[in-house]
Amino acid sequence: MDNTASDFERQPTAAVRRGRRRISPDGADARTQIVEAARAEFADRGYDATSLRAVARLAGVDPALVHHYFANKADLFAATVDVPIRPDLLVAEILRGPRDAIGATIVRAIVTQLDSRPTRDAMLALLRTALGHEFAARMLRQFMVREVLGRVASELDTPDSELRASLAASQIVGLIIARYGIRLDALADASPDEVVARVGPIVQWHLLGK
Amino acid sequence: MDNTASDFERQPTAAVRRGRRRISPDGADARTQIVEAARAEFADRGYDATSLRAVARLAGVDPALVHHYFANKADLFAATVDVPIRPDLLVAEILRGPRDAIGATIVRAIVTQLDSRPTRDAMLALLRTALGHEFAARMLRQFMVREVLGRVASELDTPDSELRASLAASQIVGLIIARYGIRLDALADASPDEVVARVGPIVQWHLLGK
Repeated sequence: MDNTASDFERQPTAAVRRGRRRISPDGADARTQIVEAARAEFADRGYDATSLRAVARLAGVDPALVHHYFANKADLFAATVDVPIRPDLLVAEILRGPRDAIGATIVRAIVTQLDSRPTRDAMLALLRTALGHEFAARMLRQFMVREVLGRVASELDTPDSELRASLAASQIVGLIIARYGIRLDALADASPDEVVARVGPIVQWHLLGK
Repeated sequence: MDNTASDFERQPTAAVRRGRRRISPDGADARTQIVEAARAEFADRGYDATSLRAVARLAGVDPALVHHYFANKADLFAATVDVPIRPDLLVAEILRGPRDAIGATIVRAIVTQLDSRPTRDAMLALLRTALGHEFAARMLRQFMVREVLGRVASELDTPDSELRASLAASQIVGLIIARYGIRLDALADASPDEVVARVGPIVQWHLLGK
């Protein structure tokens, strides 16, 4: 039950695991080159206007190699901000379960991921940057709307699904900041089960409540 | 109804209003000196260990003058981070209304305050700093726990009031970031009444729900 999280973690292929990173003939690390090119493209053009083809061109690699490492643009974006999550698989995981458990599934996934230090640090850094720079905020907004909220919202039948998804996101972002960022004691010390029990129904209500 | 917010806004005395700021014989602005000394003391010692007496000493003024400008330590802290709210009056305002409207009262106060640009900018800057610096995070935590959450929580009869207050804070912080920081469209565009209708019950549930 607790290993649901592993389903949407990015699984490195053997070639990119530590110790076997150099894969291209010239000794450069192709995956790193792609991530750096993507970071530059996202920074220049924003999330929506960046294409995998343009990233490949900038990295000097074949587009097929980008697709070899990254399932899609959302996956590549997550890599540029060091968040080791495949957003598309996370969304699929959320939608696969029963409807009345969507809130709990989301909160358990968040807590499971963020109780791990590197993911937590990456997520907090991403939020901090987005709070400090309008461009980064716009990119995070486009990413969340297109790849995460939009996909969950499109599965909901309510007319105000985008507002609902945004409200759910507000509780999730707040949970991340209060438990892992500012670390309010009572919430930082609560067990994962307690957090799921307290916040799951809220996310559920935002998404599907009347 | 919408001017409830004015009750807890810091009301400048005539002496500190723009154009009449110089009040001390040597031409210095005593209030500014006090705020700067407080900023230094908070930065050196943190929220809990800072005293108004020590701030007065550092500012080179009589402690009575600190009390002339600031009701208490919470009020002084809010001034050092440019948030023009009197936390003690805000808490009093929240607790004065009917119990089943506490969530809506809190959310309306937040939205009313943060739809005003200077307060919003100050609040986002405070959160950004707290996410970037452990010391600032600790200070914000101590401030929120002592002066805001602690006071609301102490009025609640539940055994887990601190956890409840922290959960309410998580939704409030998330609302601030999603509506005013990252600005998710649907939430940023929602009317104050809509936000109160959607988020008020959540804050209420966190604080007092079963």
